Parts: sequence; structure tokens; C-alpha cells
Amino acid sequence: MMMSPPFDNDALKQALSATSAAVERTMEPELAVPSGPEARVVEAMRYAFFSGGKRLRPFLVLASAELFGVDRQQALRVAGAVECVHCYSLVHDDLPAMDDDDMRRGKATVHKAFDEATAILAGDSLMTLAFELLVDPKTHADPNVRLALIGALARASGHHGMVGGQMIDLSANDHELGEAEIYRLQQMKTGALISFSAEAGGIMGHASPHAQASLQGYARDLGLAFQIADDLLDVEGTPEEVGKATQKDADAGKATLVGIMGVERARKQAEILANQAIEHLSDFDDKAALLRAVAHFAIFRRT
Amino acid sequence: MMMSPPFDNDALKQALSATSAAVERTMEPELAVPSGPEARVVEAMRYAFFSGGKRLRPFLVLASAELFGVDRQQALRVAGAVECVHCYSLVHDDLPAMDDDDMRRGKATVHKAFDEATAILAGDSLMTLAFELLVDPKTHADPNVRLALIGALARASGHHGMVGGQMIDLSANDHELGEAEIYRLQQMKTGALISFSAEAGGIMGHASPHAQASLQGYARDLGLAFQIADDLLDVEGTPEEVGKATQKDADAGKATLVGIMGVERARKQAEILANQAIEHLSDFDDKAALLRAVAHFAIFRRT
Repeated sequence: MMMSPPFDNDALKQALSATSAAVERTMEPELAVPSGPEARVVEAMRYAFFSGGKRLRPFLVLASAELFGVDRQQALRVAGAVECVHCYSLVHDDLPAMDDDDMRRGKATVHKAFDEATAILAGDSLMTLAFELLVDPKTHADPNVRLALIGALARASGHHGMVGGQMIDLSANDHELGEAEIYRLQQMKTGALISFSAEAGGIMGHASPHAQASLQGYARDLGLAFQIADDLLDVEGTPEEVGKATQKDADAGKATLVGIMGVERARKQAEILANQAIEHLSDFDDKAALLRAVAHFAIFRRT
Repeated sequence: MMMSPPFDNDALKQALSATSAAVERTMEPELAVPSGPEARVVEAMRYAFFSGGKRLRPFLVLASAELFGVDRQQALRVAGAVECVHCYSLVHDDLPAMDDDDMRRGKATVHKAFDEATAILAGDSLMTLAFELLVDPKTHADPNVRLALIGALARASGHHGMVGGQMIDLSANDHELGEAEIYRLQQMKTGALISFSAEAGGIMGHASPHAQASLQGYARDLGLAFQIADDLLDVEGTPEEVGKATQKDADAGKATLVGIMGVERARKQAEILANQAIEHLSDFDDKAALLRAVAHFAIFRRT
């Protein structure tokens, strides 16, 4: 049975593609290719950054910033920073020593298009660039806001967050992970950066603790819904649809929620999580329409 | 002819080993091993961090901080941060896809003691940890000082600095590099982080622009002198003395100043640079004695 999306899909698609174009415009000068022989690493950074993708994290930064009337040019710099971290993590995760992927978003991965050493360095300097962006007064006039953004992004990225999650994921072939442990893994590996994105607008807009807590709850449920949708695509999608190899988790014997729950229960769970995410936004008015739409999109998306 | 060191070598050795002990005490709680399965990446971070080494960068942070009466506990956090970045760069540089080294400081490199994936992740999260340290109010009460430290460290580490230098170094087998280009490479690859270390004390102590310029000049010359000494050790030292493989540069056909200048001229050049470094400190009184001593040490060291 085909369900039709219960939200304005066109408006969301438009917003996602506007986000993508705007964040790329913002990052263009930040990724200008220098004239020296170090140009190669910047070319690899550009290849990794300007490679399409949904730009979910930038979208969440912009949409949450809008809730609090934050300047869009400033929010775009934070959006660029979180996307730098996301792209760096993809470049490193794709390496032969990690997930060993040749394709990403329908293109050769960075270590295939360049080489492994350049891919490692490009990932490293994309991460550094994120902090260079955030520290700049152009990102926000209030030094304490810039520091709060830097601290939150560093915590979300490091061994308590994204890197720790990837470490667990890599060890998961050796461990028998239960449902609670997989939730924790996902919360660290992808959830932390998604949460940062949704909270960033609140940090920039000096949101009340109550509003920040709502965004945190929204982001946590949204992140898990997205991850289950990702796992479902890995099971059900074709490489052409998804733009990268599929069936990887099952082949690698990786523990996923879909593997434990089965496809039907997992789909139901993603739906519950998306609805929960939306409920967290009940205090916000129509300005949160796009944040609501993206939660629906999480469970209807095909790529 | 054996020259005897023209400085108080014992005081310097004592200061270097005190620095090492203090920075390790500071970093111990920051690198506490968590109880989850992500513990492995933290164990690898600890293995990389608590592995001896001269702790030159922490030493420069502490010595420059002392010039301006900066609180030592705060300076130790900055010292820990720059050493995190230095250690991350060693872990990534040692990887098979980069310099492919099995030994470092007389021990197996991180990817040998753990595995490549864990080494990549440990490097990534050591870099993130550096920014977590700097952003914390415990590092300095003034938000603008913390931001200045974060900005300077990010610029020194990224594609305009250390990563850019490593990119040039990796491409140098294909390029014919001249003397000026090698100076630039070294300035980026190792000089930028050494400069950051010497300037950090000035940033923390609200030093005058004139004093900061003196420290910058000192650090630039010191960094180059150290690099030439490193290259000389690679040519003349034994693996037992140096704690890692030697003759690597020549075997890899890498362009170094020693290769271009020859041993004798390179040794002379290191001496000139060390003396120049010391001259930059002429406005500082006896408090700069250790900074002067470390410049002499640069050209007399055997490891």
C-alpha cells in the first residue's frame, strides 16, 4: 500500500535544495584552492564537500535558527561547519581500513578519486575548518555564543559522540549488541551531530532552556528515525537508488535495529519516533512547519 | 670535535621532564576510559598521548606563559591541547597510507598496537579533544582569550598549516622542491604548531603586540632549527638512539634541507637559526632563560 506524504513535500524539497545552494555559496570562499602544492588536499576537501547529499544537518541548523530570528548568513556559517564535520566523518568512514566503500552519493569515494593519504588529510582539515568557521566573529557577535557552539560541536564529534559511536560500530561484529546498545550506538554515531544541528539555532538565538529542551527531544527522536530509515534503505534499496553499495550491514554481520526488529517493526518504530519528534515541537507555531515536515520526510524518503 | 652545551643543560632537562609529568597529570582525567565498548578508542588515544616524547610544544606553552605571569594550571590545559594535536598528527602520519612507520618513540605505532581503523579514529578524537580543552572556562576566564587560542590552533593545524605541510611533504617525491619551498613546507608542517605553542602564553597573558612579534620570530627560527636537527638525526642517528626508523627521508627520495645543503651546511644553518631565535628574546629578562636554553638544545640534542 502506497501512503501519500501527510505534509507539503514540495515546500520541503524546495527548502532542502535552497539550503544546499546557500551552504555551498557560503563555503565556496572558505574552500578556495591555494596556489601552492598543498592545493591537492583542498581539492579533495572540495570534492568531499560539494558532493550533493541531503544537507540534512545544514537544513536543521537553518530551520532551528529561523525559530529564534537568527541572521541567516550567520546560521549558514554554522550549517557549513556541521556539514564539514559530517563530510569529514564520511571520508574517514569510507577508508579501506574502516567501512571500505568505493562509492558515495553515486561518485567514487575520496580515497578512490584521490588516494588514501589525501583522503585522511582532507578529513582532518575539514574537521579543523569547522572550528575555524565557528570561531570567527562573522558567525556570531557574542563570544559566548561562539564558544557554546564550538564546545557543543566538539563534544558531539569526539569520543563521547560521533567517533565513539563509529568505534562501537566497528567493534559490533565482535560484540552481540542488544536493542538498547544499538540505540546508544546510533545516538552517538549519528544522533549527536543531528542534535547539535537542531540545537545550534537555539544557541545562536539565546533560546530559553525550555525551548532548547524541546529541540533536543525533537533532534533525538528525529536522529533515530533517520537512522532506521537508513538501515531500511540498506536492506530494501538498490545501489542505483541509494547511490552507494547496499546490503552492507547484513553482509558485514552488523547489528542494526532493522536486523533485530525485522523490517515491519522497524518501519513502525521509525513512524513512532517521527511522530514523537513532531510532538516535541508543539510549543512552536507555524515557523516549525519545516522541522515537522522533515520528520515526516525521514520515514518516507527513498534516498 | 665535541662541543659542550653553552647553557644549563640540567635545568632544561629538569624543566622538560617536569613539563612532561605535569601535562600528563592534567590530561589523565580528560582521557579517562569510559565503560562502554567505545573504550577502545580512548585506550588508543591514551597510548598515543602517554608515550613519552620531548613534550617540546607543552614546554613552549608553559615557558611563554611564565613570561606573562599566566596561571600554570591554565597553561597546562593549553599545553595538553597542543600536544593532543601533535600526537594526532603523528598517529595519522604513521599510517600505512602515509609514512608507513611501525615504530615511534621506541614503541609500536598506534595502528600496529591496535589497528588502522582505531588509529584513524584515535587521531580524529585527539584533535577534537584539543578544542574541548580550549573551549572550557577552566582554560581561561576571558572568553576572547579562549576564542583566540581556538582560532590560532585551528589555523595552525589545518590546510593552511600542519595538514597542508604534510600534503606537500607527501607530494614531494613527485615535485622537485627548492630550498625556499622546503622552508615553506617545514614552516607549515611543524613550524605552525611550534609557533602556536610559543605564542599561546602571550595570548593568555594579554602580551603587547611587540612582545607577541618577538615570540613569533623566536618560534619561527626555533621551529626551523628543530626541523633541521630532526633531519640530521634521520641521516646520522641509529634507530636505537632515535626510537624510530632512520634514513627514511633519503630512502623515500624526500626533499630535505639536509639533502640539499649537505650535513655540514645544514648543521651550521641550524646553529644560525638557534642564535637568531635567541636574539628575538632580547627584550625579555631572565624569565626567558629556558626559552633560550631550548633553542640551544635544538642543535645539541641526540634524540
